[in-house]
Amino acid sequence: MSIDITIIGTGNMARALSTRALAAGKNLQVLARNTEAAESLAAELGQGTASGNATEAPAGNIVILALPFDASKEYVQAQGAALDAKILIDISNPVDFATFDSLTTAHGSSAAEEIAALTSASVVKAFNTNFAGPLAAGNAGGATQDIFIAGDDASRTAVAEFVTAAGMRPLEVGGIHHARELEGFQLLMMAMQVNPALADFNWNTSLQVAG
Amino acid sequence: MSIDITIIGTGNMARALSTRALAAGKNLQVLARNTEAAESLAAELGQGTASGNATEAPAGNIVILALPFDASKEYVQAQGAALDAKILIDISNPVDFATFDSLTTAHGSSAAEEIAALTSASVVKAFNTNFAGPLAAGNAGGATQDIFIAGDDASRTAVAEFVTAAGMRPLEVGGIHHARELEGFQLLMMAMQVNPALADFNWNTSLQVAG
Repeated sequence: MSIDITIIGTGNMARALSTRALAAGKNLQVLARNTEAAESLAAELGQGTASGNATEAPAGNIVILALPFDASKEYVQAQGAALDAKILIDISNPVDFATFDSLTTAHGSSAAEEIAALTSASVVKAFNTNFAGPLAAGNAGGATQDIFIAGDDASRTAVAEFVTAAGMRPLEVGGIHHARELEGFQLLMMAMQVNPALADFNWNTSLQVAG
Repeated sequence: MSIDITIIGTGNMARALSTRALAAGKNLQVLARNTEAAESLAAELGQGTASGNATEAPAGNIVILALPFDASKEYVQAQGAALDAKILIDISNPVDFATFDSLTTAHGSSAAEEIAALTSASVVKAFNTNFAGPLAAGNAGGATQDIFIAGDDASRTAVAEFVTAAGMRPLEVGGIHHARELEGFQLLMMAMQVNPALADFNWNTSLQVAG
């Protein structure tokens, strides 16, 4: 069985994206620093999900970094040439989590662009505006979930096909520099989740384009 | 009859916001460079809507700049002290409309902040993620429309109260510097409207937080 998608990480987003990948009929591999955590998540997911340590070269053509921003940078630097020709999905949000009022990246940059500068893989920004809960559930308040995607044309198309297969709506917003706007808006979305004035927002919302 | 809200402009957004202001039971004044256009819109709107020339001092405590970014800057400079103590709503999007790929403001700035630097009024960013069609209709694909608001606390609250009275949901995202993220995301929203791959998007969509 050849692996389609490798997910790095075992947190809530790793679990949610694994659920969607399996729903899309993809052959999945979960890798993590903590091998036992990867094995445990793979066993829980079932459907032949493979697992291993994050130091292993990922088997999937699409590799999803279900990691915080800093850990994503460390991962791509550690993997080096093993990521050549891969499509690397960056889901991270470089938010100052102490204040939820600013990004940790420089103006005119983005986490995705910083990661892309460290690897020869084709980096695609996706899923950063999605919280784990709605993503795992596979819907946004009853509607098909919107997934915003920024990246090079060919890689973006591949990610869009995965998103469609997983039952969500891909919204391609252009080149990787548009990760800036996706990450910027998610700062606002996160701040709203911790804003006591918005009592209904508890990491359970989805950013949607209604028509 | 004292005026609650003054709207500057007679375009699609001026018309849509006028419709919402009247729905909120507000006493409305429409001012424009072209006095006849203002009179015509006021007559069409009815409900006692006043009109006049944009050179007049606005009567409303809330003044909505239903103008493009450059025209908004010109307006506040021309009005000067007449805007003291006003709440000024900036709805503009500083988008490069030739490419729909970049903003015309500098990184780490925003149209709202540039306008605020030119006036002693309290500038609030709102309605910039809303297109005129859904705003005039008063709903987002059947749902209550979300209005993102950035600005100083007291002024933001006043705008949020107007939004609620007009039948929409205010989502306060913080200080005026967060106009950066609101304007950034609307660049993506606009680019999607002109993207032939998204055939259903024709300036008829709404950015919503689904829960």
